[in-house]
Parts: sequence; C-alpha cells; structure tokens
Amino acid sequence: MASSPAHEAVDRHIRGNGSAIVGEFADLLAIPNVTGSVADLQRNADEIVARFESRGATMEVVQLDGASPVVIGELRCDNPTATIGVYVHYDGQPVHPENWTFPPFAPTILDGDSEVDVSNDVDSEWRIYARGASDDKAPLAAITAALDAIAELERTVDLVFLFEGEEESGSPNLARYMEELAGRLEADAWLLCDGPVHQSGTPQVVFGCRGFAGFDLTFYGPERELHSGHYGNWVPNPAFELAHFLASCKDETGRVVIEGFYDDTWPISSADIKAIEALPAVEDLLEGSLGFSGSDDAYPSYAESLMYPSFNVRGIRASEVGSGARNAIPSEASASVDIRLAAGDVPDRMLDRVERHLEQAGYVVLDREPTAAERRRSRRLVTMKRDVGGYRAGRIPLDSPLALAMVEVAREASGEDVIALPTFGGSIPLYLFEDLLGAPVAMLPIANHDNNQHAPDENLRIGNLWYGIKLWATMLTSDLSAVRS
Amino acid sequence: MASSPAHEAVDRHIRGNGSAIVGEFADLLAIPNVTGSVADLQRNADEIVARFESRGATMEVVQLDGASPVVIGELRCDNPTATIGVYVHYDGQPVHPENWTFPPFAPTILDGDSEVDVSNDVDSEWRIYARGASDDKAPLAAITAALDAIAELERTVDLVFLFEGEEESGSPNLARYMEELAGRLEADAWLLCDGPVHQSGTPQVVFGCRGFAGFDLTFYGPERELHSGHYGNWVPNPAFELAHFLASCKDETGRVVIEGFYDDTWPISSADIKAIEALPAVEDLLEGSLGFSGSDDAYPSYAESLMYPSFNVRGIRASEVGSGARNAIPSEASASVDIRLAAGDVPDRMLDRVERHLEQAGYVVLDREPTAAERRRSRRLVTMKRDVGGYRAGRIPLDSPLALAMVEVAREASGEDVIALPTFGGSIPLYLFEDLLGAPVAMLPIANHDNNQHAPDENLRIGNLWYGIKLWATMLTSDLSAVRS
Repeated sequence: MASSPAHEAVDRHIRGNGSAIVGEFADLLAIPNVTGSVADLQRNADEIVARFESRGATMEVVQLDGASPVVIGELRCDNPTATIGVYVHYDGQPVHPENWTFPPFAPTILDGDSEVDVSNDVDSEWRIYARGASDDKAPLAAITAALDAIAELERTVDLVFLFEGEEESGSPNLARYMEELAGRLEADAWLLCDGPVHQSGTPQVVFGCRGFAGFDLTFYGPERELHSGHYGNWVPNPAFELAHFLASCKDETGRVVIEGFYDDTWPISSADIKAIEALPAVEDLLEGSLGFSGSDDAYPSYAESLMYPSFNVRGIRASEVGSGARNAIPSEASASVDIRLAAGDVPDRMLDRVERHLEQAGYVVLDREPTAAERRRSRRLVTMKRDVGGYRAGRIPLDSPLALAMVEVAREASGEDVIALPTFGGSIPLYLFEDLLGAPVAMLPIANHDNNQHAPDENLRIGNLWYGIKLWATMLTSDLSAVRS
Repeated sequence: MASSPAHEAVDRHIRGNGSAIVGEFADLLAIPNVTGSVADLQRNADEIVARFESRGATMEVVQLDGASPVVIGELRCDNPTATIGVYVHYDGQPVHPENWTFPPFAPTILDGDSEVDVSNDVDSEWRIYARGASDDKAPLAAITAALDAIAELERTVDLVFLFEGEEESGSPNLARYMEELAGRLEADAWLLCDGPVHQSGTPQVVFGCRGFAGFDLTFYGPERELHSGHYGNWVPNPAFELAHFLASCKDETGRVVIEGFYDDTWPISSADIKAIEALPAVEDLLEGSLGFSGSDDAYPSYAESLMYPSFNVRGIRASEVGSGARNAIPSEASASVDIRLAAGDVPDRMLDRVERHLEQAGYVVLDREPTAAERRRSRRLVTMKRDVGGYRAGRIPLDSPLALAMVEVAREASGEDVIALPTFGGSIPLYLFEDLLGAPVAMLPIANHDNNQHAPDENLRIGNLWYGIKLWATMLTSDLSAVRS
C-alpha cells in the first residue's frame, strides 16, 4: 500500500523527535491525576490547555460547582470537510503506590524489565509506566504529536474537544457539562478515545457499547426463620420461589424467555455478520484464560452475544450456606440482576418486562418491603428495587458513514486491516453524545490490550503511541465529508 | 368417666402434699444443670439417684471418659405386665441470667406476674420458673411424686431408667452409653419423656419424629468473577445452574420431583388418617402466628406434611445482593439443603437420589472442590458435601400395641381425649432406642406448650406437673401386657 503524506510525515517526526515525544508525554503523566483530587486535576487541565493552545487551538477550562473541571476547545482549518468532536478523559483510577514497581507518577520507561534512558532512539516495544499512560492520557499525547508531525500539511478536519476530569468517578457531571456547553460542542460526529485495541494487537474501531439496567428482587417466606423440622413441607420456602422465578427467565441454553425481551433489539445486519465473521476467533482463548468450559449456547459467537441484551444474576442470597447454615426455612431470598442492553433496548421497558413476568407468575410486585399484614394476606409478594442510573446502549450501524470512514482512517494509519467491532461489552454513556450533542459516536482505542488499566503498573506500549499519532495525522488530513451530517 | 384408684390416689396426694411436691421439685431445679458443666451435672445425678432410691429403685451413676454422667436404674414390682424404659435428660440449655426475670437457678413460683409463697394450697395455674423446669426435669418430679401417690397400690409395670446429662449438647455419647449398658436397659418399650403437649393444652402422645440428612452444593462459573458487560451472555452463570437445579427438585406445589424421593416412605395408614382427622386444625393459626400466607399445596394438612420427607433450602449464596452487588458473573453459587426424613427413609439413599438427580441433569458430582484444570475441562461440575450425622426417622404405627396403650394411659390420666400425633416435626435420635436397645419408642410430653423451652424464663405450669403425676400413676398401675414383646 502506498504511504500517504501524513504517514510519511509521522514516520519522519518520530524518527527525528521520538524521545521528545515520549518526554513530553512523560511530563504530562508526572502530574498526578487521581479522580476526585480536584487540585491535581486542575493542574492537568491547565497543562492540557497550554499544550493544545501551543498547537493553535482555542482552549478553555470550565468548572461547574461541585465538579472536576472539563477542558473544551476547538481547532479549525481553512476548508474543513467535517467537524469531529474528540472526547478524552484525563483523570485516572486511584493508586496504591506500594503495589507499583515504580511510583505511579514518576513515569518510567522499560525495555522488558529493564529501565531505559530515552535517547533519540525509542523502540516501539518499550513501554512507559504511569497512571494514565493508557487510560486515558495517551490520546492527548497522540493528538498533539500528530499536529506537530503534520504542521506542514493542510488539515481538512475541524476538531472540537471535550476532555473530562471525572470519568473514573462515573462521569457524575458529564450530562450537566454537555447541556451547559452544547452550543460549543457542535460536531458532525464524536470520537470517544479510550480503551484498548484487540488482544491480537490489531487496531480496532468500535461502534457501540452495551447499556445497563439493574434491579434487586426479594421473595418472602415466613416472617422469621422457622425450624425446618417443624415446618418443612408446609411453610413455603422463598429460596424455591426465587429458583423457580430465575429458572423461568432463561432456558438452559442461556436464552432469555421473558416475553418481549428481544423485541426492541436491533436485528443483526449483513454488515454486522460480515464484521463478526472477520473477527479473530477468541472463544477458545476466553475459555482458557477465564477458566470456564462451554459457553452458553444461545448465541453463535462471543461477538454476536454482545449484540443481544443479557440477563445476569450478579448475586443471590438467603440465610447462610456451609458451616453457617441453620436447619431452618429462610424468611427471605434475594437476587440481584443486571441487564446489559443492546442497541434499541430501552432500560425502563426492559424492567417493565421483568415486572410483567413476575406478575404473570402470580406475584404482586412492590417497590418497597411488604408490611407484616401484607405478608399474612398474600403469599406471592415480591419487592423489585430498580437500580438508579440505567441507560440505553449506544451503537451506530457498521455501514453508516461514520463507521465506514473510521475503519478507513484506522486502516490507512495502521497499514493493515482493522477490526470493526459492532459493540464492545462494557457500558459507557455513549447515548449522552447522541442525546445531548446530537451526533453519532465511534470509539477509537489506541492502547495495547495488556496495559494494566485500572491496576498497578499501568502502561502504554510505545508502538501504540506511534499508532495513535498516525491515526490522528491521517484523520486530520482525510476527506471526511461523508461524515458531515 | 369413673375415676381409677390411681387417679384418686394422686388427687389425694396432691391435695395433702401439693406444696411439698413443688418444694421438692424446686430443690432439684436449684442445682444448676447447664449442659457441659460436668461438676454441676454430677451433683444433679447424685441427687436423682438419692430421690429414686428413696422410692425403692436401684440406681447408679455411670460416667464414660469424656462424657457427662448418665443415671441408670430399675424399679421392679411383683407381677409386672411389662417392662417400660424411661428416658429423661436432666441437663439444660445454657443461661444468660441478665435476660431472666428471676435467677434461673433460684426457682420462683408466680401467679401470673406475682411471686407467691407456696403454702399447702397450690393453684394449678401457677407456674414454677427455672432452667429445666419443663425441659427436662419435670418428668423426674412427676415420676417420684407418682410413686409416692400410689405407694399403697399395687404396681403392675417394671421400670428401667436412662437419664441423660448431655442431651442439650446434642447427645454426643448417647449411642456409646447405650452400647455399653444395653444389657441393663432391656425393656419392652421406651418412653421418651420430653417436649410440650399440644398448643391447645390437650395432652398428647407422639409416636415418631423426623430423621435428618443435609448437604451443600456448589455450582461453578468462571474461575474468577467476570465483568457482566464483557461476558454476560457468553460465560455461563452458576446462579442460573443453581436455580435450574433447585427448580428441577420441586414442583410449584412444593412436591419433590427427585426420582424415588418418596419410594421408601411408609404409606399413610387408615389409623394415621383417623388420627390426623382428629387433630385440632392448626393451619390458620400457623399462618397467623408465623407470618406467612398460603402453605405449599403438596400435602393436604400440616400434620400429614410431616409424614413425608421434606426438601428444604436452608440457604443460597452467590456473590452479593443489594448495595454490595457487583456487575459481574459470580464464580460460584452454593445452596445448602436439609432433608427431614419420614419413617422408612434412609439418609444415604436420599442423598444418593439427589446425587443421581444431579447426574441426570448432566453434572459430574464431586465430593471436593474441582481443580482449575477440571473447571476448564468440564462445565457441569458440582461439589456435593454431605453433612455428617444424618439419621433416620423413628416412628411406630398408630395401631401398634405401644401406641394404643399409651393413648389409653394418657386418656385415663387426663380424663379427656388425647391427641395422638403420628410424628412431630423435630429430629431426635429415636432410632437409637430401636437399633441399640431393640425396643419401640413413644414420646410422652407433659410440659405446657408456652414453657419458654431453651429461652429465658423457662417454666412449668403446675397443672402440667399434676398431669404428669397422674400419667405416671396410671402407667404404673395399668395392665401393659399388650406392650410386652
């Protein structure tokens, strides 16, 4: 494949300035960024503003009451083919330095296990260790280095920026910031720059995530535990009510049989099937590395299973088991469930279906504990407590203009076929970009998969930083007019 | 009904010596008898020996290494119609004096809430408060007083005695004592003198108890908890395996559908049906007082439900529920189950049936945790840990000579129709009497049902002591030749 001018420019820039790029990245990583440490995060925000302004962008730190700051900004060009929004978060997970090989905010570069001094030659297999190296300061370093690399080329894409400072706290104010700043965050599409590439090392672009809805159920037996000798066979056992109910929700293949459970889910398109078939097979790898045997049979492949809503029992509890078990009929039995939503599913509608399923089984569904009088009056009572904060999945079709364009950018940047993943398994609030900023979203990860994200010794492989620089250099010099809405 | 000589003798004795009878009982209750306190229990044993010897019995304290002592003995007559074994336990539950209204070993007599001084007139509604008052020193006082009452009458029954000192510790040495002393404990039948009469106050005789077998099951998912977003729908969830399995054990009426579960159970006889139909209906009372609504439908009545084996989930557990729940696929799910056995059931055969039921569902059943390699090789693994110490039920048919004779004795002693209970709900080792002493067993409770057994302020209603005296006076002067084996 013929190398593009952007590609050549980045190669040249890395050859000439590899150690400077890594050094500048290390300086950013040296500023502690533990989520919730507002003063530290403000220092990060100021540094990020300075770095982007020095590349010609207009930047601003905005801080709402009670929130960590966001950095917003824009970088325009003369003849933009599209405006792309760039979301990155600069806060990191908490650290326990005693568990790190090197201090989390003293960035250290290793060649395997050996610390190296970064001269002008930087090997792409080296790694830089620090909190935030991969999650999620890497894209900031990639974008600024890309701008330096293509300084002589004509940019063809306008960028607007939204860099969040509390993603690792669960983004409690992201919606508020978006509502407040929507007028300054207008874009044809947003790119969420976070997460790792495929386990095989192959670059990937990701076009969706799962949504989320959760609830707890409590089934009721006698008001207090009762002697199983005196009352076993006569007094109903709530653990059996729970077992019968859960068993009625899923068949033995793992398919959910709650009425209507799959009704709103987007059908699998031929583009989806093509993309899934092109994925490296990970099923055997998963079984080996995760330590289980024989996946559920409801879906033909791992990737396809993520495109349907799931019904997961996260916990069950009644009295005690093992040495703590008492020979008694439990008074209550509880199950906690999370539903990962697929594109098209609506959180409340899903929970309504579960509630209807309970009602069809003869239960009166309460949103609170029953009174003693209610328990004496009716056997089939269940308390259903819905989790707060459920949200829908976000996903764009694989044959949508944004998806096609991003696959092409990543392919050109990496020089190889990339993985187009219809959805990844986690739940992140992609829907906010669609709902509040009115634009489709794709995810462009650059970090190596073994980056120890959220754990001690978080790191970024230098070669992945190089890939990120190429990705952004390519992006900024591509014709993205197809993306323009 | 015409009063018998024994009945009249007891009435006369109580009228003349009521306060002396209660005073002698109080002296016995004043000797602390907390189970496990061997020195105290030895003092009780010596006092009991003295009391029975003064009534003409031959008594002995026997103490095996590492055990609390038993008291054994015999009281013969000239022309015995039968030899009856009498089992009583003289140890009591631990006490927490701060929770008692009066000290547990300073026996106190109350008329309602008012302490009374026992003069010659003793009201049958008064109660005597002390640990052991009902559970289980009351029969000792009843038998000695009965012997005094009928001193002028001809006794027609030989008695042999076995008074245990560690029933409240779970009778860890009872079998050993029986094996050791079997030659001196020969009887045509044994009477277990413990427990309360019916809630209605009506005397009852009980002809069986439930046996016991327990086990814990653990189902396995991935080796460690897995993110439900990334793996929900693909990696099997052990809580569903557990739910499907438990649901497969019982139908929604509460009937156990494990193959062969009821095969060994004695069929319900016409005598059983007659006895059950004669019982006061307690079903509505149970629902009100125990706080539940709508019993399981598998059995037509409470009393009949006790005549079948039960399958009770005593606890279930996987990860956490409520605020502690994590959005993850649990690594394990466990259930703890107890089976109360009915007459005819064999503990190990029952557990074998559960194991077969697991195997029929496709599980490999282990008696230990699987290795990591096994978990990777096979999905359907389950660990089944059987409780130690299961034992079979004990029950004699209601139309057996012993049952018929005991109903008649109790009826004559109380002057009213008595409740003949085919089995009570608890599990006690009645089978030991059958297996080691080769004799049938019946239970003859005398205590009031609201005696605070095992709790603070344990008490015996004086009227129940009077009933006990009449019961034993009647017994000792009856023709029990039908019981002779």
